[in-house]
Order: sequence, then structure tokens, then C-alpha cells
Amino acid sequence: MGRASKREEIAEAAFRQFHTRGFNATGINDIAKAAGVPKGSFYNHFSSKEESALEALKRYADTLRFDMLTAQDRPPLERLRAHFEFLSGDTVDNGFVRGCLVGNFGAEIADHNEEIRAAAKRGFDEWAARLRRVLAEAQEAGDVDGSLDVEVTALFILSAWEGTLIAARVDKSEAPVDAFFRTVFGGILRSSPPSQVTSD
Amino acid sequence: MGRASKREEIAEAAFRQFHTRGFNATGINDIAKAAGVPKGSFYNHFSSKEESALEALKRYADTLRFDMLTAQDRPPLERLRAHFEFLSGDTVDNGFVRGCLVGNFGAEIADHNEEIRAAAKRGFDEWAARLRRVLAEAQEAGDVDGSLDVEVTALFILSAWEGTLIAARVDKSEAPVDAFFRTVFGGILRSSPPSQVTSD
Repeated sequence: MGRASKREEIAEAAFRQFHTRGFNATGINDIAKAAGVPKGSFYNHFSSKEESALEALKRYADTLRFDMLTAQDRPPLERLRAHFEFLSGDTVDNGFVRGCLVGNFGAEIADHNEEIRAAAKRGFDEWAARLRRVLAEAQEAGDVDGSLDVEVTALFILSAWEGTLIAARVDKSEAPVDAFFRTVFGGILRSSPPSQVTSD
Repeated sequence: MGRASKREEIAEAAFRQFHTRGFNATGINDIAKAAGVPKGSFYNHFSSKEESALEALKRYADTLRFDMLTAQDRPPLERLRAHFEFLSGDTVDNGFVRGCLVGNFGAEIADHNEEIRAAAKRGFDEWAARLRRVLAEAQEAGDVDGSLDVEVTALFILSAWEGTLIAARVDKSEAPVDAFFRTVFGGILRSSPPSQVTSD
């Protein structure tokens, strides 16, 4: 048990360090120090920084509360909104730092490490698939326009969210997050077009 | 002149290195080596890596061809599309690497370096203002809906573009770029709502 628990502490520390500092700025010394273990302990549990980064991506995915998207407790678009409100809470409440670990790894190391890129791609693919399912449900319920391409829209919304987090960190303000909610929920996913009289 | 030209070479090499490797993975040695000068030469022209990163942001802005947005050679929405098509060309043609330097710095170091964050913010602000002006022109010309909030939409489109580049690098595919064009130009900025019969 002691061994498993130490691995858990190191893995959690690695996740927090990567999320706070980024990949390249995080050294194994930083991880060991944050976990309160000697550096050698890290290598008892992980073969490399990359391996701990791959585990960090899994841990990050577990924080995204995908269950909020699938729980049948309210209409699909409300669940979608609640999902992004939950995610924006982390950024807003913490002073616009850290962002999304998948996007951060995408921006910083996807070009240079094929294994981490592939893991980030799996993360985005799975996330986009979950968004797509909620959009399909919303479409089936008549809550979004039947002509909406849910696959394209899910992919776009995920990209837009990733960029929104970066813009919020750069701006140190909620403005990009507000723009995301207004454009996605008040524009792209608005079921009925602006009222207009179609006289001839 | 020799001195000015050496500064130019170092500044350009720094820009390329930061864009290719990211901030933390770029050492002053890398910059000097890429510029073909001894390391000491770097410090004859820049006081720090941060200073060369600030200059890299300016150089990056110069590559964005903002003139394409303002030239009065075609309708505003066509200019807007041409702007993003030009930008996507860099990513698609180069195998989905590098992305946007402003967004990369935003994801990697905005949380940790106030001077670079402020410079990235100026970059985004200026960019968003240019997008807003084109959208306002399009609105004035009746090419986008009069109810569209051009300030919010400009900010959102810029965020969405930043995230699109990250998703394309992670996916190593054009799919996120296609989703951007389809949703922004075929959805958000589409002037007329999907044809529909408003009987009774």
C-alpha cells in the first residue's frame, strides 16, 4: 500500500506541476519536491518525465466531469452549458491561469513529442465525441436546428473553448469566456433564427 | 551597418526558434547557433531571452498580413476569409506545426511572465480590433446580420482561431481548420438564416 500511495502522490504532483508550469518548465526535481519524495523515488514509479505527462493527461480528463454531459437530469443544451460553466469556473476562480492541460501540451509539445501528441489527440477525440453526442441529443429533441452538422460543430466548439482559455489567460479577464458563451449558446446553437418577416 | 544587420539576424533567429520550439525549450545558445553568432553576440543586442521574445511577438505580428483585412479591394467578409485562409496556409502547408506565436506564448508563459503576457495581450487586442472593424464594415454593407455584436464576435473568432490551430497540431489534420471555416463563415457570419417557411 505504501508503494501504491507514493506512486499516487508522485503522479498527482506531476499533474499539478505540468498544469501549473507547463511541460518544459517542469523538471523531475520539481515533481519530486512537490510530492515530498527524493528524486530517485520518481524513477521507481515512472520511467521518464514523458510517462508521467501521459498519466497527467489521464488525470486531467478525470477532472472534466464528463458525467455532467451524459446525466439525463436536464435537457442536452443545459448539460452542455453546465459543462462549460463548470470548466470556466476553474479558470475564473483561480485568476485566469493554467488553462486546459490537453491544449497546453498541444501548444507546447505536440510538435515535438509524438507520444504526447497522440495522447492529446485521444483526449480531444474523446471530448469531441462526447460533445457531439449531446448535440445530437439536442437536435433530436428539436432544441438545435436540424441542419446543424453536429460533428463539425462539436469539433469547432472544442477548438473555440481551447482558444478561449488561452485568450482569458492572456487578457486576465472573463471577456473571452463571456464571448464564448454568448456566441456558442446565443448564436451557433440558437435553435430559431432571429425573428424576421419574410414578406416577399 | 554590420552591427544593425547582426542584430537583425539574431532577432530573426530568436523569432524562428521561439515559434518552432516554444519559449522554455529555446535557449540563448539555440538562438546564437541559429543566427551563426557566438553566444556573447546575443547579449550585445538583447539584455535577456525575454527581450528577444518581446521582439519576436512584433515580428510575428508583421507576418499576419493585416493589410489583407483593410485593403478595399473586395467585400469585407471576403477579406476576412482571405485573412484566415492565408493564416491556415502556413499551418497546413508546413505539416500542422508551430501555430500562432501569440497563442503559444499565451499557453506557455502568460501565467509566469507579466511582461510577455502584456505584450501578448496587446497583440490579441490589436488583432481583435482589426477583426471587429471588418465585421462592422460587413454589417454596414448588410452582409452580416444587424443584430450581431461585432465586438463579442471578433473576440470569439480570434479565440476560436487560436484553439483551431492547437487542435490542428494535435490532430495533425485539416479537420479543425475546416470546422472553423464552416462554422464561422457558414454559421456565425451567415447573413440569412436557413430558409424556412414561416407559415402562420
